[in-house]
Amino acid sequence: MTHDPDTTGKLIDGKGIAHRLTDRVKTEVEALRERTQRLPGLAVVLVGNDPASEVYVKNKAIQTHRAGMRSFMHMLPESTPQEELLDLIARLNEDAQIHGILVQLPLPRHLDPILVTNAIAPHKDVDGLGEVNAGRLSLGIPGLVPCTPLGCKMLLKETLPNLRGLHAVVMGASNLVGKPMAQLLLSEGCTVSVGHIDTRNPKDLARDGDILVVATGKRGLVRGDWIKPGATVIDVGITRVALGDGKTKLVGDVAFEEALPMAAHITPVPGGVGPMTIACLLHNTLQAAKLALEPGS
Amino acid sequence: MTHDPDTTGKLIDGKGIAHRLTDRVKTEVEALRERTQRLPGLAVVLVGNDPASEVYVKNKAIQTHRAGMRSFMHMLPESTPQEELLDLIARLNEDAQIHGILVQLPLPRHLDPILVTNAIAPHKDVDGLGEVNAGRLSLGIPGLVPCTPLGCKMLLKETLPNLRGLHAVVMGASNLVGKPMAQLLLSEGCTVSVGHIDTRNPKDLARDGDILVVATGKRGLVRGDWIKPGATVIDVGITRVALGDGKTKLVGDVAFEEALPMAAHITPVPGGVGPMTIACLLHNTLQAAKLALEPGS
Repeated sequence: MTHDPDTTGKLIDGKGIAHRLTDRVKTEVEALRERTQRLPGLAVVLVGNDPASEVYVKNKAIQTHRAGMRSFMHMLPESTPQEELLDLIARLNEDAQIHGILVQLPLPRHLDPILVTNAIAPHKDVDGLGEVNAGRLSLGIPGLVPCTPLGCKMLLKETLPNLRGLHAVVMGASNLVGKPMAQLLLSEGCTVSVGHIDTRNPKDLARDGDILVVATGKRGLVRGDWIKPGATVIDVGITRVALGDGKTKLVGDVAFEEALPMAAHITPVPGGVGPMTIACLLHNTLQAAKLALEPGS
Repeated sequence: MTHDPDTTGKLIDGKGIAHRLTDRVKTEVEALRERTQRLPGLAVVLVGNDPASEVYVKNKAIQTHRAGMRSFMHMLPESTPQEELLDLIARLNEDAQIHGILVQLPLPRHLDPILVTNAIAPHKDVDGLGEVNAGRLSLGIPGLVPCTPLGCKMLLKETLPNLRGLHAVVMGASNLVGKPMAQLLLSEGCTVSVGHIDTRNPKDLARDGDILVVATGKRGLVRGDWIKPGATVIDVGITRVALGDGKTKLVGDVAFEEALPMAAHITPVPGGVGPMTIACLLHNTLQAAKLALEPGS
């Protein structure tokens, strides 16, 4: 008989939560259309031919469309000059049909991702990666929040009755996940610790976390004994590994089988954080559209 | 014989470090004037008659002038309508003689501090409190950094050979000090923890800190047994207390006499962080002026 750990009630059902969020967005899009005769529109810009990026962009477009919104794709050649990309963004900023603009990262090396991201008008920056939205998040002013940490926050709020006073440990300090995640958790009243590549005792730090969010890009980094018994674990990592028989599977930054007996709640990979990211993009696009179409409300 | 704790080499001489920084600013102002025939200019705006704010503003103006820069004071009545204040800021934003604008906080209740702060052009926001500079700090993009946490960082870098990998604990999560401090320490490669009013075991958290920055506004909160032996302690707090004989003295958020034997390095109050804040304002004004007057360099 194989060991079959009891996952009852432990798994955070990101897929289901994302599905319900997407359904709510769809309902709200329809209501917005009835009130304003207008639809939210999302423009997605892809430069170059990175296969993973192509898949992401395609999925975003399909999901946007399925949620009842307008979806616009701009696929530019690898060689696109920066000036041309900035011109496109300027036109999208002016376009009243477009409420959200997303430039898929990473960009080809000759393009400056900071300059390009900051060229997006803050009220259309649905990835929340520009300096104005980063500042609003830091200062606690309403704004557009990066999709992946926003999704993690939603998973936590669905799982735990109250985050205030809990010690949240974030492993990873990227602009995309770790830093905005820390700011969101601080806004929720958590005590927040951030660890990263230079952290000397990552295991000790992680084990302090009532909440542990892992976004390091190092698969299986977080072992069972890194987890405080009863902690809630959010695994942002996602790496495709070969199984040796030509098949592959997706794994996270947390050694899931070891973590499962320790954690009170844990996200699976896949099916945890992943589905929330696109759902939060739809959510952000709807919010941006509502602010544009019904500024007073 | 009174107990006379050995402070040799332990006290972080904020006064002396601020003095040297101010001298460097003065020298650079003079060199800038020789290269460009222009002087940095700082506009300080005070609304209302708060006595403490009047003292701060006066000190800032005097120090600015002493550093060889132009200093402009705008003292408006308590009843100033928001529109009028925003108009003044708009004029200062356009004024080529002005390189830095500071609106003294707190503002009277009828004025929105977020709106007012964000009205300052980001390249003139020498207090670093607007959303664009907050975002740049969060994202690691060069910008203007709030003066008090910038001063704390300078004290730490004068005191410790290398911050990378150290665990820095910040007590207090304000937009003015705690949050930007945490971001600066993260940028220096520290593992960073932020505690605040909702933190459940503040003593345990504080005692993890190789670096402990305290900015809670609660005098004497941090006792001796909150300090990791050998830690470097930065006390941002400053409260005036009555001594009972009609005299007063300034005290910090750290119980200094208890902390002294525990810490390897500690800032006194007064004479620690305080003098750095104005020196960093001069530093920021010079940086803003250099970027405006010599944009290519």
